[in-house]
Amino acid sequence: MAILTRRDENAVAYLTMNAPERLNALSDEMLAALQNTLNALKSDKTIRAVVLAGTGKAFCAGHDLKQMTAARQNADGGAAAFKDLFDRCATFMQTVQEIPQPVIAQVHGIATAAGCQLVASCDLAVAAEGTRFGVNGVNIGLFCSTPMVALSRNIARKRAFEMLVTGEFMTADEAKHAGLINRVVPEIELAPSARALAELIASKLGSAVKTGKTAFYQQIQMPLDQAYAYTGNVMVENMLNRDTEEGIAAFIEKRDPNWSQD
Amino acid sequence: MAILTRRDENAVAYLTMNAPERLNALSDEMLAALQNTLNALKSDKTIRAVVLAGTGKAFCAGHDLKQMTAARQNADGGAAAFKDLFDRCATFMQTVQEIPQPVIAQVHGIATAAGCQLVASCDLAVAAEGTRFGVNGVNIGLFCSTPMVALSRNIARKRAFEMLVTGEFMTADEAKHAGLINRVVPEIELAPSARALAELIASKLGSAVKTGKTAFYQQIQMPLDQAYAYTGNVMVENMLNRDTEEGIAAFIEKRDPNWSQD
Amino acid sequence: MAILTRRDENAVAYLTMNAPERLNALSDEMLAALQNTLNALKSDKTIRAVVLAGTGKAFCAGHDLKQMTAARQNADGGAAAFKDLFDRCATFMQTVQEIPQPVIAQVHGIATAAGCQLVASCDLAVAAEGTRFGVNGVNIGLFCSTPMVALSRNIARKRAFEMLVTGEFMTADEAKHAGLINRVVPEIELAPSARALAELIASKLGSAVKTGKTAFYQQIQMPLDQAYAYTGNVMVENMLNRDTEEGIAAFIEKRDPNWSQD
Repeated sequence: MAILTRRDENAVAYLTMNAPERLNALSDEMLAALQNTLNALKSDKTIRAVVLAGTGKAFCAGHDLKQMTAARQNADGGAAAFKDLFDRCATFMQTVQEIPQPVIAQVHGIATAAGCQLVASCDLAVAAEGTRFGVNGVNIGLFCSTPMVALSRNIARKRAFEMLVTGEFMTADEAKHAGLINRVVPEIELAPSARALAELIASKLGSAVKTGKTAFYQQIQMPLDQAYAYTGNVMVENMLNRDTEEGIAAFIEKRDPNWSQD
Repeated sequence: MAILTRRDENAVAYLTMNAPERLNALSDEMLAALQNTLNALKSDKTIRAVVLAGTGKAFCAGHDLKQMTAARQNADGGAAAFKDLFDRCATFMQTVQEIPQPVIAQVHGIATAAGCQLVASCDLAVAAEGTRFGVNGVNIGLFCSTPMVALSRNIARKRAFEMLVTGEFMTADEAKHAGLINRVVPEIELAPSARALAELIASKLGSAVKTGKTAFYQQIQMPLDQAYAYTGNVMVENMLNRDTEEGIAAFIEKRDPNWSQD
Repeated sequence: MAILTRRDENAVAYLTMNAPERLNALSDEMLAALQNTLNALKSDKTIRAVVLAGTGKAFCAGHDLKQMTAARQNADGGAAAFKDLFDRCATFMQTVQEIPQPVIAQVHGIATAAGCQLVASCDLAVAAEGTRFGVNGVNIGLFCSTPMVALSRNIARKRAFEMLVTGEFMTADEAKHAGLINRVVPEIELAPSARALAELIASKLGSAVKTGKTAFYQQIQMPLDQAYAYTGNVMVENMLNRDTEEGIAAFIEKRDPNWSQD
């Protein structure tokens, strides 16, 4: 069985991390599979939303510490390998936001360290009751410095700082309250809930969602006036889309839109 | 009856959008009336706070889609008209924050798309129970790219993203929890609640409030050290104000201040 | 008794502001004592966490208004003295975040104006039930422009704006909900709770916590790609630390780490 599986259905790509014995750690192999799959999805016009889940007891427990430890045998003590690993991981996390389709994390068990970073980096997240979230690298002497980049852009800073320096976990309810995830459901409803959310998004006009997702992360880093200048142009382009013209006409005429496209 | 009415009382300007048959859509006429009124308020020293409400079933349902659709008949398919519209709308939204008086949105019914953007752009917001908030343009193929500029600066990013790609509504309680609005009250108490908040603000030293509001939006976009350098100077100016001198003296002497001015 | 006391125990420095008759106002003397103490802590390798508390009825009620008023007798009406004061205060607030050890505010009674700014500037905060938080300078005509720099980086902007223009207080529960503080406990448990949090942090690998705290505030002001480039290098350095190597090895071997150092 592949380390990452992809199944497409109703314009949704379901990706499943499949290294349960390693708690779906972000090993070299897992990162490569995730990056390659996202790269392929980036230009896949048949897919309008992505669900990312994991098999076994955990969504994802972060980096593969055994693999990292092996690199200490290198002449430089692992420095180059570690640098390369964190570069690849950061590229992957940013690619999640760069692909045009919304990515929903379907989270269960635990999401720790880079696994928690992955939840924070996804556009949306649904979690099973009982899921625990942590950036607990501090417990083994490795502060979660890269995970905090994503985490501190999702939740209030004192809450993020507390998790980082104490290594303590958040419950799913706390994570929802803090803004790290969108929904908490009983475990039996987890996959259906993620699917329903993905299919709802896939039912929208694909070009509008794709343009909007890209614009979301661009504008959020701009000063207010630049953000408005930028998104104003995005809106004009959106308005000139033939399917948007049809969508608005249908709304005014109180009928369903007849959309042509992706 | 004018499309926008203004009534001044006790140093508070009450603005009411009055196009109930269009759910107070931000038509060319409405935007012009709002912009002109804010421009006048900007230098109106008799006004210390502004309440913005709407007549009819909704606070504001966003852009005027019929008017926008009419522009498609232009030689350029509407491109120039759309660009101009989003420019005027963005200018208005930024003017809400640029006028020195705090602006309180008094929200009922629905606040959708640019109407939700307007709530997010106001300094404060009070809503009636039952009010619903949405950036639901995605449902007709027009992603709420400009509304998201304001929304994503008010609430956690995953929550904002969810509203944008699903088109689903937030309740008033959810909006308060998320940080989009300040208070939720029974509908019968909506106008009194907004009035009480406005009059409370109007009871403060006007010059201090005005300086403070301007500084609020300036500093929030600065790096920490610049923000402190800037606001330090604002504090010095504030301290040198004669009325502030009187306010502090009165506090030390445990008496009411005898303020001279606006 | 000194205006600020320091007691070290189990690698934690307990600082206590001790001007209860002035509600621990940030007078020239208090600011100097705090700044000197933080400067000393910055390079103190025996200390891994700091708890900051106050004696008497209040944690801290902000600036010393009587002292400030006295400066009005200067030839320039106090302008230079006020500028110098706000500069020193801003330097102190930033030093709280610049020292490598996490600083926990142990808050009771009231935390107002620059006292609320101090809570917001600490890395973590624990408060007693019944504590009230406010940026209420507006009530005496002095808008809390410098406190808002810290406050608006901790909580949602509409909530911060409301506090600033109304002068109204938040309860401890509201402050926790808003993200201004981490924990609320009965007053009798306040000191033990702050101690437990500090000792938990002190039990971690000191070098990892210190590096992580510095990186936290650096990366939070960067664009996403720069934040990842920066923290990636921080992670590499962290990985090459001998104690981190031991921590990870111990985790893999399911034993306790044998750490050498600070």
